[in-house]
Amino acid sequence: MAENTRTQGTVHFLKHESDVLKGNPLGDPFVRDVIVYTPPGYEQSKEEYPSIYCLTGFTGRGKMLLNDNAFAPNLAERMDGLIGAGKIKPMIVVMPDCFTYYGGSQYINSTATGNYEDYLTHEIVPFVDEKFRTIKTRDSRAVMGKSSGGYGSLVMGMRHADLFGLVCSTSGDCYFEYCYQEDFAKAYRAIKGDPNAFIKKFWESEKKGKGDFPALNVIAMAACYSPKGADFDLPFDLETGELRSEVCRRWLTNDPVRLAERHADALRSLKLLFIDAGTHDEFYLDIGARILSRKLRDLGVEHLHEEFDDGHMNISYRYDRSLELISERIFTAETQTRGEKG
Amino acid sequence: MAENTRTQGTVHFLKHESDVLKGNPLGDPFVRDVIVYTPPGYEQSKEEYPSIYCLTGFTGRGKMLLNDNAFAPNLAERMDGLIGAGKIKPMIVVMPDCFTYYGGSQYINSTATGNYEDYLTHEIVPFVDEKFRTIKTRDSRAVMGKSSGGYGSLVMGMRHADLFGLVCSTSGDCYFEYCYQEDFAKAYRAIKGDPNAFIKKFWESEKKGKGDFPALNVIAMAACYSPKGADFDLPFDLETGELRSEVCRRWLTNDPVRLAERHADALRSLKLLFIDAGTHDEFYLDIGARILSRKLRDLGVEHLHEEFDDGHMNISYRYDRSLELISERIFTAETQTRGEKG
Amino acid sequence: MAENTRTQGTVHFLKHESDVLKGNPLGDPFVRDVIVYTPPGYEQSKEEYPSIYCLTGFTGRGKMLLNDNAFAPNLAERMDGLIGAGKIKPMIVVMPDCFTYYGGSQYINSTATGNYEDYLTHEIVPFVDEKFRTIKTRDSRAVMGKSSGGYGSLVMGMRHADLFGLVCSTSGDCYFEYCYQEDFAKAYRAIKGDPNAFIKKFWESEKKGKGDFPALNVIAMAACYSPKGADFDLPFDLETGELRSEVCRRWLTNDPVRLAERHADALRSLKLLFIDAGTHDEFYLDIGARILSRKLRDLGVEHLHEEFDDGHMNISYRYDRSLELISERIFTAETQTRGEKG
Amino acid sequence: MAENTRTQGTVHFLKHESDVLKGNPLGDPFVRDVIVYTPPGYEQSKEEYPSIYCLTGFTGRGKMLLNDNAFAPNLAERMDGLIGAGKIKPMIVVMPDCFTYYGGSQYINSTATGNYEDYLTHEIVPFVDEKFRTIKTRDSRAVMGKSSGGYGSLVMGMRHADLFGLVCSTSGDCYFEYCYQEDFAKAYRAIKGDPNAFIKKFWESEKKGKGDFPALNVIAMAACYSPKGADFDLPFDLETGELRSEVCRRWLTNDPVRLAERHADALRSLKLLFIDAGTHDEFYLDIGARILSRKLRDLGVEHLHEEFDDGHMNISYRYDRSLELISERIFTAETQTRGEKG
Repeated sequence: MAENTRTQGTVHFLKHESDVLKGNPLGDPFVRDVIVYTPPGYEQSKEEYPSIYCLTGFTGRGKMLLNDNAFAPNLAERMDGLIGAGKIKPMIVVMPDCFTYYGGSQYINSTATGNYEDYLTHEIVPFVDEKFRTIKTRDSRAVMGKSSGGYGSLVMGMRHADLFGLVCSTSGDCYFEYCYQEDFAKAYRAIKGDPNAFIKKFWESEKKGKGDFPALNVIAMAACYSPKGADFDLPFDLETGELRSEVCRRWLTNDPVRLAERHADALRSLKLLFIDAGTHDEFYLDIGARILSRKLRDLGVEHLHEEFDDGHMNISYRYDRSLELISERIFTAETQTRGEKG
Repeated sequence: MAENTRTQGTVHFLKHESDVLKGNPLGDPFVRDVIVYTPPGYEQSKEEYPSIYCLTGFTGRGKMLLNDNAFAPNLAERMDGLIGAGKIKPMIVVMPDCFTYYGGSQYINSTATGNYEDYLTHEIVPFVDEKFRTIKTRDSRAVMGKSSGGYGSLVMGMRHADLFGLVCSTSGDCYFEYCYQEDFAKAYRAIKGDPNAFIKKFWESEKKGKGDFPALNVIAMAACYSPKGADFDLPFDLETGELRSEVCRRWLTNDPVRLAERHADALRSLKLLFIDAGTHDEFYLDIGARILSRKLRDLGVEHLHEEFDDGHMNISYRYDRSLELISERIFTAETQTRGEKG
Repeated sequence: MAENTRTQGTVHFLKHESDVLKGNPLGDPFVRDVIVYTPPGYEQSKEEYPSIYCLTGFTGRGKMLLNDNAFAPNLAERMDGLIGAGKIKPMIVVMPDCFTYYGGSQYINSTATGNYEDYLTHEIVPFVDEKFRTIKTRDSRAVMGKSSGGYGSLVMGMRHADLFGLVCSTSGDCYFEYCYQEDFAKAYRAIKGDPNAFIKKFWESEKKGKGDFPALNVIAMAACYSPKGADFDLPFDLETGELRSEVCRRWLTNDPVRLAERHADALRSLKLLFIDAGTHDEFYLDIGARILSRKLRDLGVEHLHEEFDDGHMNISYRYDRSLELISERIFTAETQTRGEKG
Repeated sequence: MAENTRTQGTVHFLKHESDVLKGNPLGDPFVRDVIVYTPPGYEQSKEEYPSIYCLTGFTGRGKMLLNDNAFAPNLAERMDGLIGAGKIKPMIVVMPDCFTYYGGSQYINSTATGNYEDYLTHEIVPFVDEKFRTIKTRDSRAVMGKSSGGYGSLVMGMRHADLFGLVCSTSGDCYFEYCYQEDFAKAYRAIKGDPNAFIKKFWESEKKGKGDFPALNVIAMAACYSPKGADFDLPFDLETGELRSEVCRRWLTNDPVRLAERHADALRSLKLLFIDAGTHDEFYLDIGARILSRKLRDLGVEHLHEEFDDGHMNISYRYDRSLELISERIFTAETQTRGEKG
C-alpha cells in the first residue's frame, strides 16, 4: 500500500443549481453535487479528455460511488488503479445525483418526481463540458451504470445517442415482467393500502423493515413509469393486490426491450453498446439481458453481451469491464469495425 | 400417550384399477391406492357417514397424508383426535393418488398427463361410495386440500358441484400472476433449454438441486394448463426466457379467479366454500385468496375467507379448521343460513 | 413403474412391551412399535439372514423410515430396490422406536429420559432374534443411522461390539464443540429462563417457532448427557446464557471422539466401521467426522471415512452407501482383510 | 431537505505519520488519515470541546464513518442532526484508522499486526489534542463503537481509563465462546489448510466468497489474540479442525468478560459505561452483553445495559443512543450520581 507514490487523479465536488429541478413535485433539492474525477496529469496538461457518466443504482447518488470500502476501490480509486496499470487511458468520470424522495428517478422525466432526463442531458452535460476539458462530441462521451444506472444508460443510448456514443449497462433493469413482478406482491403487503403513509413512516425511522425496500422500489418505479400528475398509479389494486393491467402496460412502454424497437436507429449508431449481468441475479436481469440481446440482434443492433458468475449485489468489480471496453473504443475513430459478438 | 385407550378409526388401503388412466401418456400407474379412513364406530354400526376427499399438494399423493411426524398428527390421527375431542363428528376421509411423473396433475384432465379430473369424479367417488357406507349425496360429500390440493378442491367446487357440496381450499394455487411467475425465471435457468433432459436427470438422482423444484413445478403446470397433445408448451421461450403470452393466457383460463366467473352458479350452490392462506405465504397465495374472495363477493358467492399467521410450509394444522367447518355444515340441512362473512 | 412385478419384501409391525421403559421418568410409552423388514424370499425359505438396525435421527422414530416420499424411496422400498438390482444381498432391517417427550434419547441410558440403550440391547435385539430368522451373531448384525442415529450407532459399536459387528454412522453427532454450541445460544433465547414452560408450550401448539428446534435439541441432549435425577442440567446459565463448564464437561464425556479412546479395543474388533458426512453439513459434522477419523487412526482403529457434497438434510440416499458396505462385509468370514482406507 | 440552512460542522482530514506503526509486520501504512469532526461554531469560538473517539467495526476504518447512505446519516451528518435538534451538545468526534491487512486490529497491540493500542493512546490522542481545542482530561474524552469498535472501546475503558472517562460499546465482541466459535468451523472449511494462501487469494480478487469473511475474521482475531511473533496460532488444527485448547485459552484472556475482572477498578472509575446489543444479534452479542453486565454488577461496576430489537447489521442508528448518553454525562462534574441501572 505504498499509496504516496500511486498515480492519483483528482475528485472535484461542484454544486450545480438546476433550473429543471426547481419546483420539482417532491420538494427534492435543486442544488446538487456534481462530482467529477479528472485523471492524473489533467492539471499539468492542456489536453482534452473523453468523459464517462456513471449512473448509480436505485437508492444511490453520485457520492456513493466514492464510499470507502477496504476490499473494493471506490470509483476514483478504481480509475486510478486501471489507469496506473495501463488497462485504460486517462478519462474524466462524472458522478451525477438523480436521487429522489422515492429513492431514485430512473434518469427519466416524470411529472411525479421531476425531469431527471432533462436535468442530466440539458444541464449536467453542458455544465461539465463547460467546467472541464472534455472532448465535446458524442463519440467521446460514454454513459455506464449498474442496475437502475444500467437502465438509465440504456435510455441515454436510445433517446440521447446524439450526446452519448458509448453505453454500458451492468445488470440494468430490463424485461420488467421478471425484474419487478415479485416486488409487487411484497410491496402490496408492506404498503398496507396507503403508499403515502408508508413513505412517511419509511423516512421517519432509520431502521428499515424487510419489505420496505421492495415497497419503496415499486413506489419509485410507479412514480417514474406510471405517474399521474404529481401522484402515481401503482400497478396493483391497493385493497386486494390484483394487478392493474393498464398500469402494467404503461410500465412496459418503458422497458428497454420494448424501447429498443422504437429507438433502433439510435442504438445502431452507437460506437459501443455493452450489456452484462450475473447468471444468478436476484432480479433475473441475466434473463432480461438475454432477451434484450436477442431483440437487439433481431433489430440488427451490434452489441456485446456478457454474463458473469454472480448475483446482483457487490458487483462493482464489473465496472472494470465496462471501463476497459469504453477505453478501447472511445479513442478510436468512429468508422471502426464493431460488434464482433452479439 | 395412553394410546391403547384412544378412540381410533381404521385406515383401509384399497387398490383400484382405473380405466381412465389406462394408457396415460406418461406411462404412470393405472392401478393405484385409494386410502380410506373410517371413523371409530364404523365397523360396529350400520350408519352411513359423510365423506371428505382430501387432495394433497404438488409432489404429494394420498399415502403421504399418513406419514409419521412426531410433532404433527397425520390425517388419520388428526381425525381420531378431533373426533375424540368432540370437535368434529365421525366422517369418512378419502385420500386419492393423482401423482404423475411430472409431480402432480392439479386434479384436472390433460392430454399431456391423463384425465385425473375424470379419474377422481367418474371412478374414485363411485368406487368409494360402493365400498363404504357413505351418504351418497353432494350435500354429504366434501373436498379439501392444501396448495395444489386446494386448487383441485376449488375446481371440484366449480365443475363438480353436483358431487361435492362443501369445498375448502387452504393456500390453494390462485392468481397465477403471483403464484407461478417467479418460478418461471428459476425454471428457465434450471431447464437450460431442454425440459425432457431436465426431467430425465431429475428422476435419475435422488439428490435434488436448488432450482429443481421450481422447474418441475413449471413443467407440471404446463402439462396441466397448456398441454399440446402428449407434450406441452412452456410459458417462456426456451432460449431467452421471454414469456410466451399466448401460453400464459391459456394458463390464466385455469386460474380459480377466472374460473369463478364461468362457474358462479355452481359456487353459489355450495353448502360451504372456505378459503384461507397464510399472510406470509411464499407463493403469495394470501394475495391470491384475497383476490378470489373479492371476485366471489362481486359474483354474489357466499364464502368464508380467513388468514393465518404463517407461510406455505408445515401448515397441516390448518386442516383442523377445514375439518371443523365441514363437520359444522355437512350435518345440517341444506337450507341453512350461510356465509356470515365474505 | 411396473410395480406389480417388483421384488418386494414384507414390513412387519410388532408391538413390544418393554420392562426397561416401564416407569420411565417422562411417562413415555413402554409399549412400542418394532418394525421389521424381511426381504423377498424370506417367507418361502428356511434360511437365516443377517440383520441391520437402522436408528433414526433426532425427532425421529422407526416408522418415519417408512414415510412416503415420491422422490426418495422409504427404507423398505430402498431395500427392495437395492436387492432387486443386485447391489445388496437379502437382509433383515429393524426400525426401533427410541423417541421421547424431549424428541429423542440418543439411544443411551439416562435417569432423565429412560434406559434406551438397555432397551435396544437387552430387549429389542433378543426380541427380534426370537421372532425372526436372523443369524444370531454379532458378525451378522449391523447398526446404522443418520445424525443422532449415527451417534447411536457409534455408541453401539463402542459399548456393544459383542452385539453389533458392523457400524455405519452418516453425519453422526460428533465433536460436540462444533455440532451443539451454536444451538446453545439459540436455545437460551428460546427457552427464556424456563425449560419446563418451554417444553409444555412446544407440545401444546402444532405450529413451531424458528428457535424451537434448537431449544428442544439442547434440552434433549442435556437430558441425555447431563441428567440430574429425573431432571437435567442445561449447559448454560438460564439467566445470562453463560456456559456452565462442569456441565459442558459432562457432555464431552459422551462425545464419540472422547468415547473412542475408552472403547478402542471394541472398535478395533468391528468388521466394519464406516463414517461419512456432507462437506457443508449445517452442524459441521463433516469436521466432527474428520476429527473422529483422525482419532481412530491414532488409536489404530481401521475404518472407512468418506465425504459427500451435501448438507445435513435430505440425505437418506446416503443409506445406499452404508447398506452396500454392510452387505459387502457382513457375508464374509470375520478374518478378512479390512480397512483399506483410514 | 433545506440543506443550506442546516447547522453544519466541519470534517478535517489530517495525515499523521506514526512512529508506532512504522515497520509493522504486515507492511500496512504508517501514514494514516485521522479524521476529525468539529461541531458548528467551532471555528467562530475559542471554546474547548469534549472529544469522542469513534472506533469502527471489523473491516472498517475511520473514513467509512463518512460514507454516504441516502437513508442513514453518516457520522458527521448524524452529529449535525443531533446538535441541530438540541439532542446533544457540540462535541468533537475523532475517526481513527486501525485497519490492517487482516481486516482489523481490535485496537490492541500484537506482534503479528502492530501496536494499535499504543498507536491510538500514545499517538492519536495527543495528536488530536494538539491540533484541536479539546478539553484535555479523561472526563471530557469518550470512546464508542460498534462490534469490534465496541470491543476496542471496552478495552480502552479497562486499560486506558486515564485517557477515556466514558465508554460506549454497541454490540461489542464479548463472550468469545458464542461470538467467534461458529466462525471457527466456517473458517476451517474456507482456509483449507493454508491461511497464507487464503489471505493472498482473498486480496487478489474483488469478488469474495461466502466463507471468506468468517475466515478473515478468525485469522484477524488470531493475529490479535494469539500472535506468535509475526505469525499467529489459529484456534483449530488446520488439518482436522479440532480446537486447540491452549490457543482458545489465550483468546479468552482477551474477552471483555474476563478482562473486566482484572480491570474492575478502572471500570469503576468511569463516568459512563454503556453497553447495548440487539436481541437477535447474529453473533449472539446480546448474550455476551448480558453476561458482561452480570459480571460488572458482581464486580460492583456501575453501568447501563440496554437491548434493542435488531440484529448486528445496519444499526448505526444506535450511535444516537451512545452520543446522547455521552452528551448527558460528559458535561457534568465527575462527582455525579451514576448508574441508576445495572
